[in-house]
Amino acid sequence: MKNIVLLLSAAAALSAQAKIVTRTVSYADRGVRLVGYLAYDDGATAQARRPGVLIAPEWWGLNDYVKGRAEQIARLGYVAFALDMYGGGMVTTDAKKATALSTPFYGSPLMAERARAGLDQLLATGLVDARRVAAIGYCFGGSAVQALAYSGAPLAGIVSFHGGLIPVPAGAAARTKAKILICQGALDPFVKPAERDAFQQAMNKGGFDYQFIVYSGAVHAFTNPGADALAKANGLGGAIAYNAEADRRSWAHMRLFFEEIFGPGAP
Amino acid sequence: MKNIVLLLSAAAALSAQAKIVTRTVSYADRGVRLVGYLAYDDGATAQARRPGVLIAPEWWGLNDYVKGRAEQIARLGYVAFALDMYGGGMVTTDAKKATALSTPFYGSPLMAERARAGLDQLLATGLVDARRVAAIGYCFGGSAVQALAYSGAPLAGIVSFHGGLIPVPAGAAARTKAKILICQGALDPFVKPAERDAFQQAMNKGGFDYQFIVYSGAVHAFTNPGADALAKANGLGGAIAYNAEADRRSWAHMRLFFEEIFGPGAP
Repeated sequence: MKNIVLLLSAAAALSAQAKIVTRTVSYADRGVRLVGYLAYDDGATAQARRPGVLIAPEWWGLNDYVKGRAEQIARLGYVAFALDMYGGGMVTTDAKKATALSTPFYGSPLMAERARAGLDQLLATGLVDARRVAAIGYCFGGSAVQALAYSGAPLAGIVSFHGGLIPVPAGAAARTKAKILICQGALDPFVKPAERDAFQQAMNKGGFDYQFIVYSGAVHAFTNPGADALAKANGLGGAIAYNAEADRRSWAHMRLFFEEIFGPGAP
Repeated sequence: MKNIVLLLSAAAALSAQAKIVTRTVSYADRGVRLVGYLAYDDGATAQARRPGVLIAPEWWGLNDYVKGRAEQIARLGYVAFALDMYGGGMVTTDAKKATALSTPFYGSPLMAERARAGLDQLLATGLVDARRVAAIGYCFGGSAVQALAYSGAPLAGIVSFHGGLIPVPAGAAARTKAKILICQGALDPFVKPAERDAFQQAMNKGGFDYQFIVYSGAVHAFTNPGADALAKANGLGGAIAYNAEADRRSWAHMRLFFEEIFGPGAP
């Protein structure tokens, strides 16, 4: 018993030493000034280069929700970088504005390019083991990390949470390096079963490595605790809502996926 | 360091004490003599009643593959009972015979009843915490545990591995206590996308708690390392095959699901 107490004390001391460092990072893509958010545990990064996780925000932009996800990822021992798609770190709570901001990216090379600019920032921190990098994204950001994977970016894996499903572009199967985890709400009104089937069929045809998980009871935006307020403010009730169970499950599935792509015992 | 060594020695000693106990169990259902297979870690069961896991075999019957699964589950600290659906512990490697043996169960109350007889045996061991019991099944057995859940059996959860999807019976939504995890091969020729969609739609309508996971590259029987030989012997090449990646992933998803339904830190 004495031994256990000594060990626990040592662990507590280590844990007290480590702290989560966060900072905003200014960068640019094709003349657009971008503002991302970096988070890491300096106790972990002091030991060795760590796996990196790029995070692509919902169509609301790089808001406090996504910054909180970056800090959560950092607490797992990974270096997290939440990227900016819109420029200037712009955020909105207005669905009309979010639609206007996000729509130009769909079907355009800009979606992968803008995400890639974020990935380059993550790699440029010097804190990351470049062979062990993943990208995760929420909603519009889920689409963005799919596009980033299809572009052939050096990613071990991507996770899309309630993301719109991006049709597999020609040539993507040969380029894509990332394993793919798709986490989808069973009742998501923006991603119908027929669309899921078509996506999986294209993935099968291209020989992609993927796992596709459907969570009962969940609509769009199920990971965001602020979704209900955003739904109310924008007349989107029933279409977007938080679902604590699906949030918890998909987070656990993401962690398991990270263990798979980053190696056992990571971090 | 000395403390760590002492602790590790203690853990090793505990682990050496515990051993996996296995035995066949004779029981009966409506006049049919059945022979099941029980496996548990007597180090774990000596401490307290443990969560129980009922295991329903593939259409090949209670063969060495399924017995091996029972032992794997026992090594996780759970009490495992592999049930007999056919009687006399009958096994076959002939797909025609397997079809003849399994077909009468589909669409009949006998499927849930015969599985329930196995569940009763598991509970009767006195080793199991009756509030923490799951049922898992492979192929035909995946269908059987679905039917068992629909019957209202006292299960915390079920896991179906490459199981045929059983249409939700009338009244099942109100009766079902189990959370549901479905693990399916993306290329399973016996469970087409349209069938998966119809199943999920029925689950949604009934308000079931489910997670439905599709694994790329996997056909039917993807968890069974003997599937390739069975395919060859039965002219089922391309339809059933082992897939190590999907096997590993679905096993990890099952373990995560057990943590969810049996409580944190289980066993």
